[in-house]
Amino acid sequence: MTTAPASFVKGLEGIVAAQTEMSFIDGVEGVLEYVGIAIGDLAKHSTFEETVYLLWNKRLPKKQELEAFTKELRANYALPDGMLDRIRTVPKQAEPMHMLRTMVSALAMHDESPNDNSVEAAREKSLKILGCTPAIVAAFDRHRRGLDPVAPDAGLGFSANFLYMLNGEKPTDAMTRAFDICMITHADHGLNNSTFTARVVISTLSDMYSAMTAAIGSLRGPLHGGANEGVMKMLNEIPTVADAEKYVMDKLAKKDRIMGFGHRVYKAKDPRAAELMTLAEQLARDTGNMDLYEKSHAIELVMEREVASKGIYPNVDFYSATTYHCIGLKLDLFTPMFALSRIAGWAGHVIEQLDGNRLFRPKAEYVGPHAVAYTPIDKR
Amino acid sequence: MTTAPASFVKGLEGIVAAQTEMSFIDGVEGVLEYVGIAIGDLAKHSTFEETVYLLWNKRLPKKQELEAFTKELRANYALPDGMLDRIRTVPKQAEPMHMLRTMVSALAMHDESPNDNSVEAAREKSLKILGCTPAIVAAFDRHRRGLDPVAPDAGLGFSANFLYMLNGEKPTDAMTRAFDICMITHADHGLNNSTFTARVVISTLSDMYSAMTAAIGSLRGPLHGGANEGVMKMLNEIPTVADAEKYVMDKLAKKDRIMGFGHRVYKAKDPRAAELMTLAEQLARDTGNMDLYEKSHAIELVMEREVASKGIYPNVDFYSATTYHCIGLKLDLFTPMFALSRIAGWAGHVIEQLDGNRLFRPKAEYVGPHAVAYTPIDKR
Repeated sequence: MTTAPASFVKGLEGIVAAQTEMSFIDGVEGVLEYVGIAIGDLAKHSTFEETVYLLWNKRLPKKQELEAFTKELRANYALPDGMLDRIRTVPKQAEPMHMLRTMVSALAMHDESPNDNSVEAAREKSLKILGCTPAIVAAFDRHRRGLDPVAPDAGLGFSANFLYMLNGEKPTDAMTRAFDICMITHADHGLNNSTFTARVVISTLSDMYSAMTAAIGSLRGPLHGGANEGVMKMLNEIPTVADAEKYVMDKLAKKDRIMGFGHRVYKAKDPRAAELMTLAEQLARDTGNMDLYEKSHAIELVMEREVASKGIYPNVDFYSATTYHCIGLKLDLFTPMFALSRIAGWAGHVIEQLDGNRLFRPKAEYVGPHAVAYTPIDKR
Repeated sequence: MTTAPASFVKGLEGIVAAQTEMSFIDGVEGVLEYVGIAIGDLAKHSTFEETVYLLWNKRLPKKQELEAFTKELRANYALPDGMLDRIRTVPKQAEPMHMLRTMVSALAMHDESPNDNSVEAAREKSLKILGCTPAIVAAFDRHRRGLDPVAPDAGLGFSANFLYMLNGEKPTDAMTRAFDICMITHADHGLNNSTFTARVVISTLSDMYSAMTAAIGSLRGPLHGGANEGVMKMLNEIPTVADAEKYVMDKLAKKDRIMGFGHRVYKAKDPRAAELMTLAEQLARDTGNMDLYEKSHAIELVMEREVASKGIYPNVDFYSATTYHCIGLKLDLFTPMFALSRIAGWAGHVIEQLDGNRLFRPKAEYVGPHAVAYTPIDKR
C-alpha cells in the first residue's frame, strides 16, 4: 500500500478494533456494565442464564422468554453421539484446556451444517456449544479419575448441572449460587484477547466452531485466562497467613509479578473482584478454607499499602482462585471454568461481528532486507 | 480508559499490528518477497524445505544446513501413536478443514511439554506440526475413501511424500514440482487473517498448538483460504470455454463477485498468480485438463478488459484451483493444501511474536446504553 505506515503500537493498545453493545468498561472508575447494567447488580440479582439472554438480546428477558431460553439451553446439555467416545480417547494427563479446545473443535464434525453463519444458525450453535461444554469438561475430569460420565440433568440450571455432572451429586444451593456468580462475572469483558480472536476468526466468514476453538486457545495463555491458576499456585506457595507479607515484599523487592494483580484495562479496582471477594469469604467460611481467604486478604492489604498508588489492584483472577478452590475444583479446571462462562461473550461477539462484517486484515511493517538475490546453494 | 477512541476502522485496515522480517508485499507494484527474495525466483529455483528454512532463519541455508533441516523435518513425517486411531473416528462426511483443525489441536495432547514457548521448543513444535500435518490430511482422505493409511516415506521430500501418502503411489516429478511451487508460493503473506490470528493467540503466551489451531479455523473462511474452492466451483459452473465470456458478463451486470479476482492488498496483478499461471498451463496440458486452463484464461481476459482499470486482477486462488485439480485433489482438499504450506508462515510469525511479545488487547467502542437499572423479572 502507498500510505505511510502508522507508528507501530505493540499489542494494538488503544486502537479501537470493533464496536459492541454488550459490555462497557471504565477502567479508571472501575465500572463494568453488561448492556448498561452494573456487574454488581447482575451478580446480586441475576442468573447466568438471564445474563446470557441479556448479552445476546441486549435486554433482560420477560418471564416466559427466560423460560423458553432456559428450556432451549437445557435441551443442549447432552453431548452429540460419539463425543463421549472421543473424550475417552484423550490421554488422562492431558491439560484440560488442550482437551477442551480439541473437543469444541470436534463438535463441528457432529453438526450437519457447521458452516451456516445465518443469525438463526449462529444462535443455535451458540446454545449448543454453551449447553454441552460443561458435559465435555465434566466427562473428561471423571475419565481421568477413572469414573464413568454422569448424564446431564435437564431439571437443573446451568451451574448446578455442571457441578452435578462433575461430582455425581447435586451441589448445595450456596455452591450453585457461588458458581453461578462466577459464570455471570466472567461472561463478557470488552475486546479481551480471546474475544478479539473470535471476532478476527469469524471475520473470514469461517464458522462458529472455528471462532470458539480459537478463543479457547487464546484463553489458556498465562497472560489471559491462565492467570487464575497462577494465583492458586501462589497461595499454595505461602505456608500460613503470617508468611504472606514477607512473600509479597520479597517478590516486590525482586520486581517479580504478584499473580492476580494489575490489569491493562483497570487502573482502579476491578469491579468483578469486589463482588468475588465477598463471595470468596463466605464460601471459605462455609467450606473450612478460611486460611486461603485470609492469605488472599493479607496479600491484598500489603499490595494496597505498597503499590495501589500505581494503580495496581487485585483483578478478577485474584478471588476467583479462592472461590473455585472452595467449590472443590482442581487447579487445572480453573481456566476451563472461565471458558464455560466466556463462551457466552464469544458467541455474542461473533454474532455482532457477522452483522456488517469486514475481514480483519491489518498490516505488518516489514523490517527485513529488500531485493536480495537468490544465490545458488553451492555459492552460499 | 480516558483517551478518546480513535476513529473506528473496520477490519483494522491500514493499521500496523506487527513487525516481521519474513515477507514483504508491495500491492501497488505487485511485489512479494520472502526475506528480500522475489517470490518468482523462489518458485523457479527453490524447494519448499529451503523456503521454510529461509523464512525461519532469515537467510538461505548452506548445503549441510539444508540437509540437516530436511532430515529433521523428515523425522517428523510420522504421526504420534494414537493419532491414526483418532482420525479413524472422524465422520467420513466431515469437512477436511474441521478435521484438520481438530487433529492439529489434538497433537498438543501427544506432546509431553506442549506449553514450552522457548525458541528452541517452538522450533521443534513447528517442525513437528509442519512435518506430520500432511499425514493427517492424507490419512483422513484415505479413511473416507475406505482405504488404509499409507506410512510416510522419509526418503521423499515434503511434497512428494504427501502425494505418495495420499495416493499410495509415487508422484511424477512434474506433479511433485508443481505441488512444491504451490507450497512455496503460499507459505507466507504478511499479516493475512490467519497469520494475524496466530500472533494474537500466542500473545497470551498460550502455545504453538493453540496458535496453529486458531489459524486453521481462520483459514477455512471463504474470505480467506476458502476462496480457492470457490474458483473451482465457478469453473465447474461454466460448461465450455465459449461460455466463459457470457458467464462473467452476466455476473458483472448483477454486480456479483467473480471468485479469484481482487485482493485487499494487491492493486496490481498478484505476483504469486503470475507464477502459478505458467505452471497451471503446463500441468493442464500434461494431465488433459486444457479446457479448465482455457476457461480460466478466458475469464482473465474478460476481467482484464472490463475491470482491470479498477485494480481487480486474478489473485493467488485463481490459478491454484486449476493446479490442484490437475494434481488430482478433491475440491475440499484445496484449503487444507493452503494450510500445509501456510503452517510455515504461521510458525515463523509465532516465533517472531514471542520475541518481545506484548499481549494483543485492542479496545471495543461500546455503543449500547449506560446506567440501566436491573428491573425485577415481574416488572419487565
